[in-house]
Amino acid sequence: MRLVRIQHQGQARWGHLQGDTVHLTDGMVAEPTGEQVAFAASQLLAPAEPSKIVCVGRNYLDHIRELGNDSGDLPKEPGIFLKGPNALAEPGGTVARPDWTENFHFEGELALVIGRQARQLSPENALAHVAGYTCGLDLTARDLQKTDLQWFRAKAADRFCPLGPWLETELDPRDLRVQTRVNGEVRQDSRTSHMIFPVVDILVYVTRFVTLEPGDIVLTGTPEGVGALQTGDVVEVEVEGIGVLPTPIG
Amino acid sequence: MRLVRIQHQGQARWGHLQGDTVHLTDGMVAEPTGEQVAFAASQLLAPAEPSKIVCVGRNYLDHIRELGNDSGDLPKEPGIFLKGPNALAEPGGTVARPDWTENFHFEGELALVIGRQARQLSPENALAHVAGYTCGLDLTARDLQKTDLQWFRAKAADRFCPLGPWLETELDPRDLRVQTRVNGEVRQDSRTSHMIFPVVDILVYVTRFVTLEPGDIVLTGTPEGVGALQTGDVVEVEVEGIGVLPTPIG
Repeated sequence: MRLVRIQHQGQARWGHLQGDTVHLTDGMVAEPTGEQVAFAASQLLAPAEPSKIVCVGRNYLDHIRELGNDSGDLPKEPGIFLKGPNALAEPGGTVARPDWTENFHFEGELALVIGRQARQLSPENALAHVAGYTCGLDLTARDLQKTDLQWFRAKAADRFCPLGPWLETELDPRDLRVQTRVNGEVRQDSRTSHMIFPVVDILVYVTRFVTLEPGDIVLTGTPEGVGALQTGDVVEVEVEGIGVLPTPIG
Repeated sequence: MRLVRIQHQGQARWGHLQGDTVHLTDGMVAEPTGEQVAFAASQLLAPAEPSKIVCVGRNYLDHIRELGNDSGDLPKEPGIFLKGPNALAEPGGTVARPDWTENFHFEGELALVIGRQARQLSPENALAHVAGYTCGLDLTARDLQKTDLQWFRAKAADRFCPLGPWLETELDPRDLRVQTRVNGEVRQDSRTSHMIFPVVDILVYVTRFVTLEPGDIVLTGTPEGVGALQTGDVVEVEVEGIGVLPTPIG
């Protein structure tokens, strides 16, 4: 099922997208109320209401190598960093290129949203805590990763996390194509099967230390092909079985 | 004025603490509803409902030196890292010493809570966006700061941010004594006037990149004297003009 979050009569509402119709609900995981809206007339919002955004760095070997971070050994555990809810941006929403970075990068990723409180998950029950999967764009001020004490400006600035277009609830995350295009040109093209730490491993690791709440987002890392964005570019992140997240750079 | 957040009839409620009485309100910044509760019978909660916890690292030169991070130059801008709301712990609440760190450290700090949405603040209007000041304990898995890609386990684990006991609204943050005691022994004793980046500078810097929301917390950094905690220890952070935040280690 596709769970969408839309602006409806001045309110943010969740709904089930079936064909051309949004069947409104009273929450991310909820039954339709009977209200219906035409999808074509709906303004999409980011499909999550997170208390935190948990991101994995260095989860694809080819991306580790392209940034010169290959020490010869694979990471022994997932490298995690945080963004706050201020980083969310809606599907199709313009993100202004900040004037304080010289090297503003795209990183297309598979993202997931937590459906129920998750702590100390096991490999067996981890995926049952996922409400759905979507596309994420981990915008990055590449130059400031070197100078920030921790990746604060580099990763956590306002609107540095476009997400969407919707949550796909019935999906096996283990082998999905992830593609990023800039102005129509393919720049990243890989599969989630190339992750060093697959989704289950990420969830088991993170919830050893941090309780994930319903609505929390996990970005699962980006493959090779990252690069700089300029004003006027349009980035599209597409994940197989989900759809396309377009982000114009303003 | 002192703003307290307490557990009352199964709900988290804000109130004004005057003498021995809590005058309940319907929000952090709100007028009393007329309901009154005896403070002695109140169970304190962390005095904030954050969307994010923004922390400053390396804001006191003597602390930079004690950790061997002194490169000869003072930091040119505040070093920021994030915790999520999962890190909050209530005043007096026990924090379990995690079994996954060999070096579990206390860092006592002045903390502040944002009162209204703050972006692109100026030195002139920054402090007007602060709802109040309180004591913060930035618990840290010191050994994992070296091995984490970013300080995730090291800083952002569940209950790694005890906060309280209340918000003091009428306070000048520029020159307050900050003291941390472990089992009654003074371990940190400094003044906020020794900060490399005072509160105003921190707020102006952070809000260039990240919008702060009402309830968001800023931890302003720790002075010299950090050290390891063992099960059974009691940490007290005291900030002049505010009060004492006690945290038993379980």
